[in-house]
Amino acid sequence: MVNAPRFIESAIREIREEVGNERVVIALSGGVDSSVCAELARRAVGGQLVAIYVDTGLMRKGETERIAHLFGDIQLQVIQAGEEFLAALRGISDPEQKRKVIGERFIRVFEREARKTGATCLLQGTIYPDRIESEGGIKSHHNVGGMPAKMAFSKVIEPIRDLYKDEVRVVAGELSLPPEIQHRMPFPGPGLAVRVIGEVTPEKVIVAREANWIVEDEIVEKYRPWQCFAALLGLGTGVKGDNRVHGWVVAVRAVNSRDGMTADPIRLPYEVLDTIASRITAEIPSVARVVYDITPKPPATIEYE
Amino acid sequence: MVNAPRFIESAIREIREEVGNERVVIALSGGVDSSVCAELARRAVGGQLVAIYVDTGLMRKGETERIAHLFGDIQLQVIQAGEEFLAALRGISDPEQKRKVIGERFIRVFEREARKTGATCLLQGTIYPDRIESEGGIKSHHNVGGMPAKMAFSKVIEPIRDLYKDEVRVVAGELSLPPEIQHRMPFPGPGLAVRVIGEVTPEKVIVAREANWIVEDEIVEKYRPWQCFAALLGLGTGVKGDNRVHGWVVAVRAVNSRDGMTADPIRLPYEVLDTIASRITAEIPSVARVVYDITPKPPATIEYE
Repeated sequence: MVNAPRFIESAIREIREEVGNERVVIALSGGVDSSVCAELARRAVGGQLVAIYVDTGLMRKGETERIAHLFGDIQLQVIQAGEEFLAALRGISDPEQKRKVIGERFIRVFEREARKTGATCLLQGTIYPDRIESEGGIKSHHNVGGMPAKMAFSKVIEPIRDLYKDEVRVVAGELSLPPEIQHRMPFPGPGLAVRVIGEVTPEKVIVAREANWIVEDEIVEKYRPWQCFAALLGLGTGVKGDNRVHGWVVAVRAVNSRDGMTADPIRLPYEVLDTIASRITAEIPSVARVVYDITPKPPATIEYE
Repeated sequence: MVNAPRFIESAIREIREEVGNERVVIALSGGVDSSVCAELARRAVGGQLVAIYVDTGLMRKGETERIAHLFGDIQLQVIQAGEEFLAALRGISDPEQKRKVIGERFIRVFEREARKTGATCLLQGTIYPDRIESEGGIKSHHNVGGMPAKMAFSKVIEPIRDLYKDEVRVVAGELSLPPEIQHRMPFPGPGLAVRVIGEVTPEKVIVAREANWIVEDEIVEKYRPWQCFAALLGLGTGVKGDNRVHGWVVAVRAVNSRDGMTADPIRLPYEVLDTIASRITAEIPSVARVVYDITPKPPATIEYE
């Protein structure tokens, strides 16, 4: 396990040396990785740091507002790009293609905004498992902030590249980041797009967002999972009154993990599963069916795409 | 609850009167409904009964062999029509359309074979909930044997039309039908086709058949559910070694019910769910993920399409 105070000291020194008198920019997602990097850079180079938060339209409920609130004291630029992303995703149902489109679009938006800042250094929240899994092709574009930007940065700085997720959390605690960041669940770069199987439509994103909200509401506080979420799988049949209807099938995933490399489904009490299923089908009338994922990683991944 | 001995006596009398000196034909699916009807007719008119079993290629593992064995003593014709059904289903992914194609194909095959028998009476295993749900459009073609055949039968006889499922089972017991028929779970007329979301391909049918076999093997004997099965939902990601792979998402459904009109998911112990998930992903390598359905009926149906 990392020695947090020593790590912070050396990371700050590294950032300071690398950045020098230049400006440094980070794609802040609000996750613990990019937040820790932003905080390290704030301490290292203060006003030379610009954080860019791109709202892709694929964020969870209230997420953008939360970020703006939490990072109010650093130089934060919130970019509303939802329509741009949804337009680019229209008609695309292949998972790799979706991820590619989002990744490219993200780079384009980030590049455009980063250029305006005059920054020459790029700060990235890549952690150890990201590097391992990228090599195996497991989540090539999962962390959109972790992709090689094609723009001309003179330097790319990855201060937490050797840490595991739990170590990043320890560092976040040592940095006194608020608990909602310190214990924030991993959320994939492509956002709700990987929690919607097949083509991403505005309707599907809304259903996925509401279902994710309910799942987090029922599970996070009480079970403190490594990760929990809802994914929209497709259509199945349901019954309303005496009629057969087609409705969405929503999968609920809640796992515990040490480092994200392996994971086990949490054995939620059936009372909790009942509540989740009835809340989702009642509060989102277009959902007919709720299933609970019982597969560990491996052989399944944590996310669905 | 039905008085079984009295019911049997009156049903036999009814069949005898209706059939007279003609021949009567039944589409025997091996389910408790058609089996009870076949047995009643055997007792009523003996050699005037011909049972036709159509193997659609969408049956469960070992099903056709089991039927042939169990009904060896009545005049049984087993029709192998798998290739014909799979060819007709090629390229069709709409659930209603799939059901329609199977229903029509079934009628065509049954008609063709029934004509050869010279039967003028049709015996059908329609039960009370089938009639109610057909009126509401809930499972228009669920019981392919229950569809109005367009051929010229002078009479359609439905001896168990007023019974609920549990009453049919009592009658089956009174008729001394073997336990595997008496307690057989409902299996939809379109077979595994409604347990494969979207287009029915030979590969998907094989995966669904193997997964259903495992689910029944782990649940039936121990929990005696109203119904349990596996359905193939679509593709999700999994991980093999260090690589990301795409694999099937399989849903497991196990419900208890009194009459099929409403149903509740069985609260299977997580040890059992673990075993099912690891058996399915290990024995069917193309499956990456297993989910357990936690929705009651309503709002979900029991089957997926």
